[in-house]
Amino acid sequence: MVQPLPGTELAEFDTPVLVVDIDAVQRNIERMAGIARAAGVALRPHAKTHKSPNFARRQIAAGAVGICCQKVGEAEVMVAGGVTDILVTNEIVGRIKLARLAGLARLVQIRTVADNAEAVAWLGKAARSAGVTIGVLVDCDLGHARTGLADPRAAAELGKIVAHTDGLHFDGLQAYHGSIQHTEGWEARRAASDAANARLQGFRTAFAEAKLACRIVSGAGTGTYPFQTAAAGYTEWQCGSYIFMDREYRDAKGEDGGPLRTFEHALTMLASVVSVAGENHCVVDAGYKALSVDGGEPELQGLPGWTFGFAGDEHGRLRCTGAEAAPRPRLGDKVQIIPGHGDTTINLHDDYYVVSGGRLVGVWPVAARGRVR
Amino acid sequence: MVQPLPGTELAEFDTPVLVVDIDAVQRNIERMAGIARAAGVALRPHAKTHKSPNFARRQIAAGAVGICCQKVGEAEVMVAGGVTDILVTNEIVGRIKLARLAGLARLVQIRTVADNAEAVAWLGKAARSAGVTIGVLVDCDLGHARTGLADPRAAAELGKIVAHTDGLHFDGLQAYHGSIQHTEGWEARRAASDAANARLQGFRTAFAEAKLACRIVSGAGTGTYPFQTAAAGYTEWQCGSYIFMDREYRDAKGEDGGPLRTFEHALTMLASVVSVAGENHCVVDAGYKALSVDGGEPELQGLPGWTFGFAGDEHGRLRCTGAEAAPRPRLGDKVQIIPGHGDTTINLHDDYYVVSGGRLVGVWPVAARGRVR
Repeated sequence: MVQPLPGTELAEFDTPVLVVDIDAVQRNIERMAGIARAAGVALRPHAKTHKSPNFARRQIAAGAVGICCQKVGEAEVMVAGGVTDILVTNEIVGRIKLARLAGLARLVQIRTVADNAEAVAWLGKAARSAGVTIGVLVDCDLGHARTGLADPRAAAELGKIVAHTDGLHFDGLQAYHGSIQHTEGWEARRAASDAANARLQGFRTAFAEAKLACRIVSGAGTGTYPFQTAAAGYTEWQCGSYIFMDREYRDAKGEDGGPLRTFEHALTMLASVVSVAGENHCVVDAGYKALSVDGGEPELQGLPGWTFGFAGDEHGRLRCTGAEAAPRPRLGDKVQIIPGHGDTTINLHDDYYVVSGGRLVGVWPVAARGRVR
Repeated sequence: MVQPLPGTELAEFDTPVLVVDIDAVQRNIERMAGIARAAGVALRPHAKTHKSPNFARRQIAAGAVGICCQKVGEAEVMVAGGVTDILVTNEIVGRIKLARLAGLARLVQIRTVADNAEAVAWLGKAARSAGVTIGVLVDCDLGHARTGLADPRAAAELGKIVAHTDGLHFDGLQAYHGSIQHTEGWEARRAASDAANARLQGFRTAFAEAKLACRIVSGAGTGTYPFQTAAAGYTEWQCGSYIFMDREYRDAKGEDGGPLRTFEHALTMLASVVSVAGENHCVVDAGYKALSVDGGEPELQGLPGWTFGFAGDEHGRLRCTGAEAAPRPRLGDKVQIIPGHGDTTINLHDDYYVVSGGRLVGVWPVAARGRVR
């Protein structure tokens, strides 16, 4: 593939391409590190957002205790890229994956989560075969009804099983509630978090009664960290999206009722206008294969009065909807688009074009892209 | 990455993984080739579906005249993989892409489409710089209102400009209507195609009046080829999805009012049950990062009474909804899932696990995955 030289201006990039403003990224990293430090909570950013050791190392340099991954394949990439402390926040099942996970534990500190006794037995066997110890957090369902045990006593029973399994070390609780991250409105999100925190309290009581010390209680995301505090029992946060911010998190709203502006948009999709044949629209070269759809519509940056709509795998349609709109883009013009959902948009691309002051400073691979296994 | 050896049974694959039944693929390829032959229309399958020269070469061996691509990056992969006749069915704009396209035309037969005089001038300049001739089809808007000219006389004017541009060769019309491919119901799809065909007739008349011979009139897809015939003016079909078939095309309905069964489902997503902690559901390791969402919900194969629902980037939730349902899958069980939309699902993955009789025969890269530029 043709790659531009460092120093190339953004307007000269071939498109569509993910553009990262590294200065905004660094400000986001430092801001979140400062918030966690002030809150007395460890930060373990989720690498499922950026999928790149380059960003993970910057987060760790700013004070993060390690990172989270969702998949063993992501963890393999992060270990190869120099990360030495990883929590895999997903149930790991299957002979091949367990052997790979245990292999990583020979190299670095590995923890994972569990919600089933049979899975714990399989995990212990893999750890013993590899001659390693794997840390385990019992996965608690705080209301998402996806993975995790909903009954605190059943969870504590599983904690005892972990504690008695050779090759495993009981480390605490996985307490992440995914579906409240985007609850719209600061107070609505606080209320949803309070309900989750109340459930967490039940788990903490059950584990205390079972005499199982929860050294780690890990959870929260970019939407709920203000409410899932040390006082609520959390020892570490798993926030990931804050590094780039996407439209979906911004529109979950801040404390003042406006957009959530704690973090800056540091990632955009650069696209080109490829057709102006339509009377009332123009077409850019970014559709379902350049921007994910699961987080809702992306948003045009710096083009007031215009909206983006998906128009197929490779096409987006720009329409003028505002009264005081910017002039219609011309053929070949570049536009910048804020993804609806960052994580899944990034997963569509092989590389980041990293810019500073609007000029290229490097092309970084999305190294763990597609590592779904 | 760990790869299984040939002969490995499907149930032993690490997951999630794209599984292709190569025998069903070959039957689909031969069936469509036979249909096109009988209809007197050339077949130029769209490689945006499979993104792999391995499948393109099989289509050409069965009689296809060449292939379509959406992106220059896809065409680069196909040329490297031995394909010698390519139509890029998308407006190509931008200095870098035009140079790359012209470079390919030094190696093989390249055609593309245009809907703008300025774009034609840029394309001609790139062709002359490379010392090549690029074939051009004028892009006609048959009602989709995306790219393409809607006015037949304006299109014929553009055809004249192409014909008078050194480095370009006017070859005919791009006449693809994307948004009617999934119109539900055979007769509804016929009516939509008839309306598009009537518009095409207007374009053919205008070009005849302008004394521009349309050697190629290229269009139709897996949904509309039965209605966009030689009699309607088509010389070649661009169908792509027929090779694997997805749920969306099947549910567009066949002539008998039932599912469209002309082609077999040859592609599934194999996933594993990773959590059975929920009372009324279980969870598999395939979510937004393994299955695209733009074509609607995927469907479970061979698990009557159960439905798949997205539950995040890495999770799918299986729920029992039927009265006479299969037993609940157990932890570690494998399930096969038919994608809602094949093209965008395939774009999420690095490789196909190719099987015959349920055993691995090869791991094939999705070579043009992510080639959005």
